[in-house]
Amino acid sequence: MKELEDRIRREGTIKPGNVLKVDAFLNHQCDVALYDAMGRAWAEHFAGKNITKILTIEASGIGIACVAARHFGDVPVIFAKKAQSINLDGDQYVSTVYSFTKQREFPVIVSRKYLGPDDHVLLIDDFLANGKALHGLIDICEHAGATVEGIGIAIEKGFQGGGDELRSLGYDVDSLAVVDSMDPQNGTIEFRA
Amino acid sequence: MKELEDRIRREGTIKPGNVLKVDAFLNHQCDVALYDAMGRAWAEHFAGKNITKILTIEASGIGIACVAARHFGDVPVIFAKKAQSINLDGDQYVSTVYSFTKQREFPVIVSRKYLGPDDHVLLIDDFLANGKALHGLIDICEHAGATVEGIGIAIEKGFQGGGDELRSLGYDVDSLAVVDSMDPQNGTIEFRA
Repeated sequence: MKELEDRIRREGTIKPGNVLKVDAFLNHQCDVALYDAMGRAWAEHFAGKNITKILTIEASGIGIACVAARHFGDVPVIFAKKAQSINLDGDQYVSTVYSFTKQREFPVIVSRKYLGPDDHVLLIDDFLANGKALHGLIDICEHAGATVEGIGIAIEKGFQGGGDELRSLGYDVDSLAVVDSMDPQNGTIEFRA
Repeated sequence: MKELEDRIRREGTIKPGNVLKVDAFLNHQCDVALYDAMGRAWAEHFAGKNITKILTIEASGIGIACVAARHFGDVPVIFAKKAQSINLDGDQYVSTVYSFTKQREFPVIVSRKYLGPDDHVLLIDDFLANGKALHGLIDICEHAGATVEGIGIAIEKGFQGGGDELRSLGYDVDSLAVVDSMDPQNGTIEFRA
């Protein structure tokens, strides 16, 4: 998606440790018109699939998923929560995710009430690097007996391999920008054609 | 907003400790068509105000704010983050918030790059109870020299007083449903007329 690649080139910054900062428009300050264009792109890619729910993970995925859902007939968006909260019942699907950004493991939970065997799920997230967060969401869908119809990602760090691993497992991964390499020295980013 | 009150009556559940669970449609599973109607209601209420940014707090506020922003000319949404992250620079506005749900204090941070003296800010959140989260966001706007133009809330727990305190301070608080009392014994909820 050229619009997203242009924004990354223009406003993204590369930090040591393979960190690509895009908090000017994607995951701290949010450009909702861009989110809308991303949702439209995923709706085109996944056209013909019977999607009943969108599943994402807090926090950065939520805004993207909610704006995108408007292009999928306003299907419900569920966001997996990262910690136990007194606002949630005990009746939950639980998985564990290692966060690249926070450098620690944490549990992710989804209430059993909102996901079941009849659901056909589109997973959405802002980043795909090694794929740990997505494996947690896939795990939750498997617990629920739900079908993962596809995975919509804003930015895939292709050089970290998580996206290609998911494709080799048969998942339909639609990443709107795939970074094949980035150089913190001179700030250049190469996108997959 | 009748649509929201009806949903709370139909799908909300009252838990001990003054907890109103609305995770069927507001803050775990998200009804984005309802979010859109909420955004339209706030846009009507705050019509004529020159809003340049929407500020919310992770996680539950993000989806609501992003869908609502589409009714405010796609102004940028900023979500305050609840903890230090290696993805954020050191150059941040910081405040502290006590979470009613999590029963502990945590720092909230916003990058200085995205909020400044020229900004006219609409604060949006899912809940307003004692007002601690909003005071944190107001504090951040004061650090930035930004003007708080108004506060859009989905559900205000009127009996906890945070909303009326903010109104007495001069803030224009538009809560779409104000719960004046709720009874965990028989499950009844009274809304402010």
